Amino acid sequence: MEPTNPIDPATYFDSYEDLKVHEIMLTDKPRQTAYQKAIIGNRSLFAGKAVLDVGAGTGILSVFCAQAGASKVYAVEASNLARLARAIVAENQLERVIEVSECRVEDFQLPEGERVDIIVSEWMGFFLLHEGMLDSVLYARDRFLKPNGLMFPDTATLYVAPCSVPARFDRWENLSGVSMRCFGRALRQQNSDKPEVLTVAPEHLLHEGHVMAWFDLMEVTVDELNSIDVKDVLVMQRSGKLQGFCIWFDCTFPRDELDQAAMVDVTLSTSPTAPETHWKQTVIPLPEDTCEELEERDPVAFSLSMTRNKDTNRRYDLQLTLLDPEKEEHHLPCECHMTKCILMKTHLEKMQVDEQ
Amino acid sequence: MEPTNPIDPATYFDSYEDLKVHEIMLTDKPRQTAYQKAIIGNRSLFAGKAVLDVGAGTGILSVFCAQAGASKVYAVEASNLARLARAIVAENQLERVIEVSECRVEDFQLPEGERVDIIVSEWMGFFLLHEGMLDSVLYARDRFLKPNGLMFPDTATLYVAPCSVPARFDRWENLSGVSMRCFGRALRQQNSDKPEVLTVAPEHLLHEGHVMAWFDLMEVTVDELNSIDVKDVLVMQRSGKLQGFCIWFDCTFPRDELDQAAMVDVTLSTSPTAPETHWKQTVIPLPEDTCEELEERDPVAFSLSMTRNKDTNRRYDLQLTLLDPEKEEHHLPCECHMTKCILMKTHLEKMQVDEQ
Repeated sequence: MEPTNPIDPATYFDSYEDLKVHEIMLTDKPRQTAYQKAIIGNRSLFAGKAVLDVGAGTGILSVFCAQAGASKVYAVEASNLARLARAIVAENQLERVIEVSECRVEDFQLPEGERVDIIVSEWMGFFLLHEGMLDSVLYARDRFLKPNGLMFPDTATLYVAPCSVPARFDRWENLSGVSMRCFGRALRQQNSDKPEVLTVAPEHLLHEGHVMAWFDLMEVTVDELNSIDVKDVLVMQRSGKLQGFCIWFDCTFPRDELDQAAMVDVTLSTSPTAPETHWKQTVIPLPEDTCEELEERDPVAFSLSMTRNKDTNRRYDLQLTLLDPEKEEHHLPCECHMTKCILMKTHLEKMQVDEQ
Repeated sequence: MEPTNPIDPATYFDSYEDLKVHEIMLTDKPRQTAYQKAIIGNRSLFAGKAVLDVGAGTGILSVFCAQAGASKVYAVEASNLARLARAIVAENQLERVIEVSECRVEDFQLPEGERVDIIVSEWMGFFLLHEGMLDSVLYARDRFLKPNGLMFPDTATLYVAPCSVPARFDRWENLSGVSMRCFGRALRQQNSDKPEVLTVAPEHLLHEGHVMAWFDLMEVTVDELNSIDVKDVLVMQRSGKLQGFCIWFDCTFPRDELDQAAMVDVTLSTSPTAPETHWKQTVIPLPEDTCEELEERDPVAFSLSMTRNKDTNRRYDLQLTLLDPEKEEHHLPCECHMTKCILMKTHLEKMQVDEQ
């Protein structure tokens, strides 16, 4: 079986060979802690099990799995970092449990007739999918995971929220007493063709975040990742300047529902309200002439699409369009202050009272 | 007169065209504040004066000078960022004061017979000289500055101190319960041919810092920057693991000695004890087998040279050698606990008492 999304190893794995990138990931505490808790905190799920670690990197997740009691861990890493992973496995005296393979998971082979109980992987890219490696993980799932196996993580959720972006607007109005609006404009223009990875302060979110997509990693297919589209009307939960849209994700991990004592519920969140990770948030700044001061309960209508790049499968293009809230369909009931929504909400409430 | 160190514009100025680099510099608060205070806080030095801004970038220092009362500011910027600087000048309605020239300062011409009163520049690179542009500033000084003119900054000091480097050693002994010593080793090996730009916590310094070089920017010549060498014995001021050497710099600015009210004394420091800047510190980690646990008052002997790279004038190579404190000459008196130094110190103290 051929991989559905062949990767050019020359362009992909070379950048990952840079140890500095791995240093950043390994010292990303929320990331490390989430995987450690999810694995070590659920020993009952790992005890005596066979695990496949897809894109093992330095092999740290494989070591967690072995520490949690896995009887066999296949660590698959395509770059020559696999050699370092092998050394780390030896340093932790786990050579008898962890087997490192230096190959793409698409070229990997399990012993004849074997499948694994669990797949672990840290495959997430910027805004979840951009430069990530979910395709390879899904390929591994379909080929190597037992029918009732587990995925670590097992769900991923994408969020979008309108926000203020002072780092691209307000900051440049007065920098140390100098007006630098045109520098801010240049920054926005320079980046208009690519998503901006920035830290958004929680107070700059104008909405708590709308679920743009939810993925059950046991079920989702590569084709379903080709394009993620959302069209919605959101009601501002805070007044402020609408200057862009903020995107983030979170991932959850399976837990042992039967073992109340061991049960650890773990979410790795990259929300502006969670401790900062190396993913930060992704921001799409708006053109200056579409920015406006909004009040609480103002409706914002938009469509957002995340589409696989035609030339590079692992990259995603973002496209945001502001729509006219007057013309778009609102949620039912809608909390916004437009007359039709207030009337509809009153009507629905009255119906509810009448029913009681 | 030809520039002494021709720069290849294709390799140098392209990277600076990346606005993100300028964003990092402009949002570096200690850097911004130092220049702003040094210039705006010394209006009496700038009032009615002609200023040359070497490597003006976005032109923010030129705007400071105009705000401080300069009658004319020549902002010279070789990259096409000069166009953005021009827009920022216009945005601040200072076109009548600031004249932006898009050229290398080596190709710049002042009006016939004119010289400037002040040169301002933010030319500092990593460990002061690496990838900086001091050569161009000195060229501008010799060609364009009046004999009694001022340089902003006017001095630069380089410091070196032995230190612990947990980010390259201890951290990897136990990362989330996993032994990753070989990852730390790989990080050190990968970077062994280039200086490491890292943040060193003040408590990881084993010495307050030894002055490795001091530059009077009115006097120093390009030739004096070809090689900076130091050979010394330092006495540890704190016990800890000797794992590397930390290098940093600070710069001072002229002040108006006559105007007591306006007099603002400004130092831009990149020391581990000062607020973090984008320069951070530069660290030379030691080979593992030369690291050792040191006590307070232990002597550390070393030589350190900073030499202009043969192929790229703007880059510097660092070379550190640990020496035997038994064989090297110590300071007089020396605070270290070696017998000869204790004896000598006692002897010197006795002589002092006898003299009184």
